[in-house]
Amino acid sequence: MKFFNVHTVQETFEVIDQYIQPYEKTTVLPLREINGHVLAEEVISPEDVPAFSRSTVDGYAVRAKDTYGSSQSLPSFLQITGKVDMGKAADTPLKEGEAQYIPTGGMLPPGADGVVMIEHVEEVGSLLNVYQQVAPGENVIRAGDDVKNGQVVMKPGRRLRPQDLGVLSAVGKTEVKVYERPVVGILSTGDEIVPADKRELSPGEVRDINGITISATCNGLGCRVVDGGIVGDDYEQFVKRTRELYEQVDFLILSGGSSVGNRDFTTQVMQSLGEPGILVHGVSVKPGKPTILAKAGDKPVLGLPGHPASAMIIFDLFGRRIINRLQGYQPAGIDSRIPARISRNIPSSAGRSDYIRVKMEYRDDEVWAVPVFGKSGLIRTLVESDGIVEIPEEKEGLLEGEFVKVRLFSYE
Amino acid sequence: MKFFNVHTVQETFEVIDQYIQPYEKTTVLPLREINGHVLAEEVISPEDVPAFSRSTVDGYAVRAKDTYGSSQSLPSFLQITGKVDMGKAADTPLKEGEAQYIPTGGMLPPGADGVVMIEHVEEVGSLLNVYQQVAPGENVIRAGDDVKNGQVVMKPGRRLRPQDLGVLSAVGKTEVKVYERPVVGILSTGDEIVPADKRELSPGEVRDINGITISATCNGLGCRVVDGGIVGDDYEQFVKRTRELYEQVDFLILSGGSSVGNRDFTTQVMQSLGEPGILVHGVSVKPGKPTILAKAGDKPVLGLPGHPASAMIIFDLFGRRIINRLQGYQPAGIDSRIPARISRNIPSSAGRSDYIRVKMEYRDDEVWAVPVFGKSGLIRTLVESDGIVEIPEEKEGLLEGEFVKVRLFSYE
Repeated sequence: MKFFNVHTVQETFEVIDQYIQPYEKTTVLPLREINGHVLAEEVISPEDVPAFSRSTVDGYAVRAKDTYGSSQSLPSFLQITGKVDMGKAADTPLKEGEAQYIPTGGMLPPGADGVVMIEHVEEVGSLLNVYQQVAPGENVIRAGDDVKNGQVVMKPGRRLRPQDLGVLSAVGKTEVKVYERPVVGILSTGDEIVPADKRELSPGEVRDINGITISATCNGLGCRVVDGGIVGDDYEQFVKRTRELYEQVDFLILSGGSSVGNRDFTTQVMQSLGEPGILVHGVSVKPGKPTILAKAGDKPVLGLPGHPASAMIIFDLFGRRIINRLQGYQPAGIDSRIPARISRNIPSSAGRSDYIRVKMEYRDDEVWAVPVFGKSGLIRTLVESDGIVEIPEEKEGLLEGEFVKVRLFSYE
Repeated sequence: MKFFNVHTVQETFEVIDQYIQPYEKTTVLPLREINGHVLAEEVISPEDVPAFSRSTVDGYAVRAKDTYGSSQSLPSFLQITGKVDMGKAADTPLKEGEAQYIPTGGMLPPGADGVVMIEHVEEVGSLLNVYQQVAPGENVIRAGDDVKNGQVVMKPGRRLRPQDLGVLSAVGKTEVKVYERPVVGILSTGDEIVPADKRELSPGEVRDINGITISATCNGLGCRVVDGGIVGDDYEQFVKRTRELYEQVDFLILSGGSSVGNRDFTTQVMQSLGEPGILVHGVSVKPGKPTILAKAGDKPVLGLPGHPASAMIIFDLFGRRIINRLQGYQPAGIDSRIPARISRNIPSSAGRSDYIRVKMEYRDDEVWAVPVFGKSGLIRTLVESDGIVEIPEEKEGLLEGEFVKVRLFSYE
């Protein structure tokens, strides 16, 4: 048996970034189906958006200089020569001393360079009294103000948000090349694990938790999950079921049973799937030390610890990063954690990253992170928590009242 | 025409909370399909989890008092009388002076009340040298430690997260009563709006943005969207298409065109759909003043402003709240906004809530929110932004360097 060094969390991140490259699986999807996908092409606008200068208010299109000096006491007088219809070309040119009614969003007629708001004029027959001056471009979105013809609208590696779809729609980009969502396989292992729908448990049995929690997390990240079910601590079966699942997916996750035999099987099976094999065997993290990371061929394989809270915390650290890497997602690097004060002293060992489950409390306008204690085998600790606080490896614990950053679980 | 008062943002929230009640649509779904759904029943555990006391380490099950006083120099000696198998009943009782091998997760034999870690013992034939004492309960999860028989596991109104599914799995709750995801109908209106797939625009036309951005946002909230397409400023068509869509959905959204005529149609149509009719007509908010909220029968109807950035901001404020209310979701009240310093002075009017699009910047370990300026008709302002800062109605603007809270758009 080969020996492996335990890695720190940071070292494990580096291994992931080094070994897991964006896969080649891209696809072209209709605009309405790409929310949350990662863009796989550079999008260049083939036109100006808007394609024409538009009014941003209801009012009168004018030549700005015809209004200069206008005021409540000294209005200008312009000749009303027409009306712009919504969605139609404004093809009657506007000459000096003229005005045309224009609705919000309407196209500016040729010759006009500003719009006086309806509130600042008075119509007297075909004559318009203008009580306020406008500057050139006032109350106008000019052609190309939103996006210019030839402009790079978006670069690959971006995870698409609803507003990104909006700008793609605006430039008429209705078929978009994106990374496919990875297919993730999850196999729960261990003689003691039985399916959730087993009604009467025999002594010594527990129902599967990790298969459910990690599947749901992967679905939430947009991945399709192949449920590999549960396999006991029988090496032949273990190998067979793991290989079958490995063939069907882009990313294989083994949720470890907790017995020694099971851990040995997991290591052997992960090593046997193909080169380069195991990359990380144990991480100096609490909870979650028995984490294993391998790569077999092009496919990442993650061995999660068996304890439910550990499995979720480790998946959130490493599994999510792997899924992002596969899709070529380049995060913008925004720190979305929220500051809070920790409600009590928490010891920790230098050289090890600790992840503390916390509940948020608001006391006297201050936000406090209150640790939810409990063994990592207890799933309720995560159910009662609102988020996670990291004690980085260089720190030896936290002092009561110290500021920390909380990574909130999603859903507000 | 009836007249309506403009509401503040807070007043509009109150109207929503008063008029929009959880709808009756619940359904029973398999455990694997409920992530993100809102729970519609109280879940009580029918059993202890775990159902038996388990070891949290690999080691030897013992009677704790048999190890009292044990140390490296003065070990206790116990008789090894068996081995607990994973997932099997531990039915050989453990008597005084005895020890049984137990793997992590294994069932504690009757009579045992603690586990000595494998690292702290030495096997000598059938004799076990114990070099460290353990307390009763040490290295053990007791039966019911996670969830107790008869305990309320979860209450209705909770939005289910992966860990919540985990605990439901643990108690064998595989069929769960949840609120159905609302069906949202979206109709884009306005003579100037054409579908995204129209290749060559005629003068005066713009491609639909709101239909795309609001659909994607609703999908992201788990809703099914019925795409009502686009209707021009023809009252008969407007009424017909709105009514058709209204019949098919739980929540109807009209994305306003921007002309005066269109706004009048929207108001009339919303009022005509049924009692109680229009509840809010105009909100003192920037951007997004021309927001309209109605209720027709049991169904909420939201009239969004036509400008793309306004429509998204208003939907995020009010549409999301309506969707949550319909599903009986009771948010835990956690403030997920992150503090930052605003990079420049921003004026605002008291009595009006302003929503400023911002980009996050990290300077000298400080987080700054840099306003992304641009007219609310420009979708790119949202594409370039990382989040939104609210200037509440009671404030008259922000001063450079002042601390603000940023609501980040999702996706990290």
